[in-house]
Amino acid sequence: MEELDFYKAVPQFSRLRRDVLYEDVWKQPELGPRDRSLVTCAILGALGKNAELEAHMKKAIANGVTPDELRGLVVQLAFYGGWPCGVNSAKAGLEIFQSGGPAETA
Amino acid sequence: MEELDFYKAVPQFSRLRRDVLYEDVWKQPELGPRDRSLVTCAILGALGKNAELEAHMKKAIANGVTPDELRGLVVQLAFYGGWPCGVNSAKAGLEIFQSGGPAETA
Amino acid sequence: MEELDFYKAVPQFSRLRRDVLYEDVWKQPELGPRDRSLVTCAILGALGKNAELEAHMKKAIANGVTPDELRGLVVQLAFYGGWPCGVNSAKAGLEIFQSGGPAETA
Amino acid sequence: MEELDFYKAVPQFSRLRRDVLYEDVWKQPELGPRDRSLVTCAILGALGKNAELEAHMKKAIANGVTPDELRGLVVQLAFYGGWPCGVNSAKAGLEIFQSGGPAETA
Amino acid sequence: MEELDFYKAVPQFSRLRRDVLYEDVWKQPELGPRDRSLVTCAILGALGKNAELEAHMKKAIANGVTPDELRGLVVQLAFYGGWPCGVNSAKAGLEIFQSGGPAETA
Amino acid sequence: MEELDFYKAVPQFSRLRRDVLYEDVWKQPELGPRDRSLVTCAILGALGKNAELEAHMKKAIANGVTPDELRGLVVQLAFYGGWPCGVNSAKAGLEIFQSGGPAETA
Repeated sequence: MEELDFYKAVPQFSRLRRDVLYEDVWKQPELGPRDRSLVTCAILGALGKNAELEAHMKKAIANGVTPDELRGLVVQLAFYGGWPCGVNSAKAGLEIFQSGGPAETA
Repeated sequence: MEELDFYKAVPQFSRLRRDVLYEDVWKQPELGPRDRSLVTCAILGALGKNAELEAHMKKAIANGVTPDELRGLVVQLAFYGGWPCGVNSAKAGLEIFQSGGPAETA
Repeated sequence: MEELDFYKAVPQFSRLRRDVLYEDVWKQPELGPRDRSLVTCAILGALGKNAELEAHMKKAIANGVTPDELRGLVVQLAFYGGWPCGVNSAKAGLEIFQSGGPAETA
Repeated sequence: MEELDFYKAVPQFSRLRRDVLYEDVWKQPELGPRDRSLVTCAILGALGKNAELEAHMKKAIANGVTPDELRGLVVQLAFYGGWPCGVNSAKAGLEIFQSGGPAETA
Repeated sequence: MEELDFYKAVPQFSRLRRDVLYEDVWKQPELGPRDRSLVTCAILGALGKNAELEAHMKKAIANGVTPDELRGLVVQLAFYGGWPCGVNSAKAGLEIFQSGGPAETA
Repeated sequence: MEELDFYKAVPQFSRLRRDVLYEDVWKQPELGPRDRSLVTCAILGALGKNAELEAHMKKAIANGVTPDELRGLVVQLAFYGGWPCGVNSAKAGLEIFQSGGPAETA
């Protein structure tokens, strides 16, 4: 896990990220990595954290979420978080959606 | 689907709920009902919509999400949406958690 | 304008409410009272401030907004602020909607 | 209505935008286009959706909202949504405000 | 520290509260307890977490924040988080403000 | 105090900033400038107003808040406002943190 500049600048934050967020929370068995990623994308999309959402969408794909499932998330965000949440999550996933994910019904 | 008073009072809203939200969005194939429910709970928890979250947690159980998965959601909400989101989602799911869901690791 | 307990308890806040919010902001000519009320209800609904929304919906009616216009606001909030914003604004306006406002198309 | 890349990438979202958001919601009679635009700008400004707000402010002008009314919205957003909402909505409308709208009292 | 029902119901959340939030975060030396409490109240007030704010205002008093400083926080929240944040934080602190805190200028 | 373009474009907003926000609110005695700055950074960080946060962090330093105290704020924001609030406040303070503030424990 890379150590980004802004984490280095706040050592307590960096330590908690490494030891608590990634070594504890993300490894808890109640939710597997695929579901935890899906849920995290939903939270970030609802809160409008677009840069973090883009990063976690890629992580979600790595954890087994499909591009079509992220498309479904976009629509659910649009309706439950408001249209701009749909817009911003569609933008955050654009690279994923355009790089050959399976076609969607519509 | 029951027709609640506040929906009856705003006919366009009621119609869109019936024809679009439940007949279209929730039936789209990109996300199955279980995942859509999980994602919806994540969105509602992140936005602090506690009453809606409580209702959708029950729907999530009906759609196949387990109590332990909702416990995992609580922790993920606490870290990505802020501690009070964890608190409020734990409260929203209290009845589910206390009524005999499988024990959790900890 | 009544002096509520929690305003009395914070005199600077009470003074600013009286001298700035109501004597200055609400009287600025750029937006008339009807439009200012409509806009205020939209802001409060988007932010999920349900108690304040209920009070300002009544003020909006007094300032010339119609019940049907508030119904339109409910739908717009549901789509741009997310479905729970629609739900909560419909609840906040329920008394207005049920007490004889003109029928709505649907 | 142009079909933006991120809408193309999520066909269900694009379809709902066209058939529901613009063909249904925006055409409902409870709120006319001018009021619906004003309300939408208020919602977007309150939620800090700055890019969407900038686009909808231009649409609001096209729908008959005046630059001065948008100035009034900026102030109302600053007080009911918090000062940064005023700042960001003033920035979103800067081009409109600078391109010859009628002078404002102050 | 009491073990509330909803924490008991989600053991991982309870464990993280005890071992990380209170044993680690709150004891970090960068911010002393008084400042940490003041900052926590500001965050909770901005996010509209009223029940948590009420509890943390009491903790803030115990940590050395004065009632008048909380009055100042109310005004700052009203201006930077929006008027309803001021209203709700004034309500959350009402018991503190009424029980004999030092008089405020105004 | 410089007069920014977007303030000039909305004279009422500019006037209120000068006469109310800076000449009244910021000078109220309940909270001194150091505490008021700390609280304002907490509010802005919780609301995700990153550009405003960056500016107010610099003002906070000028008002006597130390870089280490801002580091403590970053962690508190991460836990009470959600991890992305920590990330964005760490980014907003990066220049301050890198330009020679006292080393932090960790």
